[in-house]
Amino acid sequence: MSNDEYQEGVVAAPAGTEEFVFNQTMIRIKDPRKSVEFYREVLGMTLIKRLDFPEMEFTLFFMGYVREEDEAIPDNLRDRTAYAFKQKALMELTHNWGTESDDSFGGYHDGNSDPRGFGHVGLSVPDVDKACARFEELGVEFVKRPNDGKMKGLAFIKDPDGYWVEILEAESLAEMSVK
Amino acid sequence: MSNDEYQEGVVAAPAGTEEFVFNQTMIRIKDPRKSVEFYREVLGMTLIKRLDFPEMEFTLFFMGYVREEDEAIPDNLRDRTAYAFKQKALMELTHNWGTESDDSFGGYHDGNSDPRGFGHVGLSVPDVDKACARFEELGVEFVKRPNDGKMKGLAFIKDPDGYWVEILEAESLAEMSVK
Repeated sequence: MSNDEYQEGVVAAPAGTEEFVFNQTMIRIKDPRKSVEFYREVLGMTLIKRLDFPEMEFTLFFMGYVREEDEAIPDNLRDRTAYAFKQKALMELTHNWGTESDDSFGGYHDGNSDPRGFGHVGLSVPDVDKACARFEELGVEFVKRPNDGKMKGLAFIKDPDGYWVEILEAESLAEMSVK
Repeated sequence: MSNDEYQEGVVAAPAGTEEFVFNQTMIRIKDPRKSVEFYREVLGMTLIKRLDFPEMEFTLFFMGYVREEDEAIPDNLRDRTAYAFKQKALMELTHNWGTESDDSFGGYHDGNSDPRGFGHVGLSVPDVDKACARFEELGVEFVKRPNDGKMKGLAFIKDPDGYWVEILEAESLAEMSVK
């Protein structure tokens, strides 16, 4: 690979893309009670907007990190929807009605066994060990604990559908990258 | 569903999650030349950091929107890696070496046919029709054009591996949501 072809850090948005925002990552979920609770109570995201589509029998849950220093979430319904679709880095959880109580439903595919494709979403946290100790207390299932395997200091946990969530620490990965 | 259980907009990060950042969405890619070009030239993202793992024969490409008003990307290698892992809303493109020239490689699974799971990533743009006219000129493959189907005013395109990328407009979705 040539370095020219993959030159890093050159900010030059082509004309017509200047205001694009990476708004959402959509995954399908079996049971919104479990998933909304997990993303809110375990991972700490806010449920910004729920949108119901009764004719097509599905509901979307838009969740993401909202901090005190961020723009306030509008109270008004219309403005809150517009706000949701302008944010960076939201999870869009899609619930097709009925799966939560359908014993014949086999669950969703996490992408990490054949056929592979999607891998995971990843959270940057200030302290991986502290974050993982808390996840342990909360009974979260781990794919990889921080000290497992070759890649020390990062972890993977599972969400209620089995999707992988990476837990990483920016400064320790930066140290690894220059060794 | 009760409104209490899914109350929107209540910002209350549980203790221990206050500084979590939704950093990355990882997908596997067959050919980095095609994918880095697509995410950079077609979608307008910046390649922030490439990380090679020669022993395990894979490379990661971290790409996202960087704007002039954002914090500058550090020149220093270590700091640029730390920067990458602190940002919101990056794509992490994983290239397992060799797939790009392996005729027997069947490609990756987009998650939208059985077995389903992951659905798409989505970009918020100021004008869906303008954005899509540009994608047409660039020869991008569409799953759904803005005027196709029931959901007018939003589109889905395909990236080089066939993953779906939603193209949406916040204000028009907000209008739809209150009709």
